[in-house]
Amino acid sequence: MFLAQVHVTYKPSILDPQAVAIKNAMHRLNFDKVEAVRQGKYFELSLDVATATDAETQTEAICEQLLANPNMETYRYEVKELANQ
Amino acid sequence: MFLAQVHVTYKPSILDPQAVAIKNAMHRLNFDKVEAVRQGKYFELSLDVATATDAETQTEAICEQLLANPNMETYRYEVKELANQ
Repeated sequence: MFLAQVHVTYKPSILDPQAVAIKNAMHRLNFDKVEAVRQGKYFELSLDVATATDAETQTEAICEQLLANPNMETYRYEVKELANQ
Repeated sequence: MFLAQVHVTYKPSILDPQAVAIKNAMHRLNFDKVEAVRQGKYFELSLDVATATDAETQTEAICEQLLANPNMETYRYEVKELANQ
């Protein structure tokens, strides 16, 4: 069993008004040391495959076909092996 | 400058129909090795503070007061120093 941890965020060129709103909310709460906020989506996939390479191949394809919008978003992921149950 | 990477996910006891829908979509796309999906929110905060301890204290307070719903969600974060500009 492998665990893939996937982060999907907007490309830097894409305007993200939700992140701006979150930053403004932080400043209103007096967290004025926050200079920038990025926000995105996070997924954890448990994959029943034999090797880390298989897990990476599957995760890559899943990101391309389902989790990320390639026009606006980028993704990155790490794969790690889970201890045997 | 410090970067805080925050993950907010549902507590394991909370039913997450969106994650189930994502898993079903993966299976329809023939990614049938996916056994489980968790999904959540991801934030990156750039903090203009002097020490890693300050960054952790601020991030903890921001999670408590803004980013996470303590009734339903848990959060975790890592803080790392950014190279000087």
